[in-house]
Amino acid sequence: MAFSRKQHTDRSYDEELADLRAKLLTLGGKVESEIAESVRALAERDTKLAEAVLGADREVNRLELEIDEKCRRLLVLRQPAASDLRFITTAMKIVVDLERIGDLAVNIAERAIDLNQSPPLRPLHDLTKLCELCQKQLRGALDSFVDADADKAEAVIKDDELVDALYHNLFNELLALMMEDSKNIRRANSLLFVAKHLERLADHATNVAEMVIFMVRGTDVRHPHSRDEV
Amino acid sequence: MAFSRKQHTDRSYDEELADLRAKLLTLGGKVESEIAESVRALAERDTKLAEAVLGADREVNRLELEIDEKCRRLLVLRQPAASDLRFITTAMKIVVDLERIGDLAVNIAERAIDLNQSPPLRPLHDLTKLCELCQKQLRGALDSFVDADADKAEAVIKDDELVDALYHNLFNELLALMMEDSKNIRRANSLLFVAKHLERLADHATNVAEMVIFMVRGTDVRHPHSRDEV
Repeated sequence: MAFSRKQHTDRSYDEELADLRAKLLTLGGKVESEIAESVRALAERDTKLAEAVLGADREVNRLELEIDEKCRRLLVLRQPAASDLRFITTAMKIVVDLERIGDLAVNIAERAIDLNQSPPLRPLHDLTKLCELCQKQLRGALDSFVDADADKAEAVIKDDELVDALYHNLFNELLALMMEDSKNIRRANSLLFVAKHLERLADHATNVAEMVIFMVRGTDVRHPHSRDEV
Repeated sequence: MAFSRKQHTDRSYDEELADLRAKLLTLGGKVESEIAESVRALAERDTKLAEAVLGADREVNRLELEIDEKCRRLLVLRQPAASDLRFITTAMKIVVDLERIGDLAVNIAERAIDLNQSPPLRPLHDLTKLCELCQKQLRGALDSFVDADADKAEAVIKDDELVDALYHNLFNELLALMMEDSKNIRRANSLLFVAKHLERLADHATNVAEMVIFMVRGTDVRHPHSRDEV
């Protein structure tokens, strides 16, 4: 790019960038396991686990601030060249998505605590499956970022269709349960929100993937909008 | 801050910052009116208006990219001092929230197109009221950003309670309608998602306000998480 000034080849700079990558992966791993635990707390009716997720969110917020600060320091102290600049500013945006995913885990954990007080409405295999698919999407998106691999990012965007299809099925089943018996409405509705949270998690992964493609190729592939499927 | 190097007082730099502020307000105004129109399309059963919202989202995405690019150029060409650096990096994050609000408007418009094909379930005064409150929150958050006014930002965070209370009432009413008659379930559920989209819009406004306080005061007031109220 025309405005890159200086190539940084010094070791400490590379180390700082590597550290930024590592911290982002740590944060990504944390929110991924929070999501998994919140859904497990629901599927296995484990309220203690759900409460642990509520507590763990503090660490996510701490990491978010640390990464933010690191990015700002790199920007001001290092005057990064164009491609690093793109990497660092993308990191700052990705952190927002990761932190929001942490919030979604908290939301799911809160639902779990509430739902675990009533008898189970139905088995939750498909919710667990949806969760696994969403985690895979998140992992793929973060991998594509640290590897600066636009092809990987494209695969994530493509697989969002699978998430949407699974969410759609689950949604219709829950709606049918509501119609079957009004006693199901409150619980089915809560499960529906959990499913919606997972679908939003996948949307965040898609957003990250789109940013990665933009970062790598410099062209805009961001979708005109994420469609609301139900 | 210790790492600020240089005060920029040259006119063109100030102009560029002013231009960044103006562009952000333009984008904020656009997503605010998209939200208003999508809810009006629903309340007044105006499918043409809903379709116009779907089309207008392209302009939001264009502006988002333009602001992003502007921020990157400012970072690389101007090596901004600490407070400006904070302003520019906050702008890059706020743009993400604004773009997501644009997505919410699209989601609501899609629901409106769908719901307008069935007879109305109930009057939508409270949905319109919720929308107005959310718009006020968004406007307040953006004002607090351009004025770098942490007190204004605090007021936005405080008023999020009003949004939550209104959303909660609406949620309970819609759930009651579902329980009353299973024929209401599908439409009430769609309206419930619209209400949820508006509540998320207010969450985005709260996020922006939290970032502003961080930008101005340099201390973290970001909530541990945005609670999911229903």
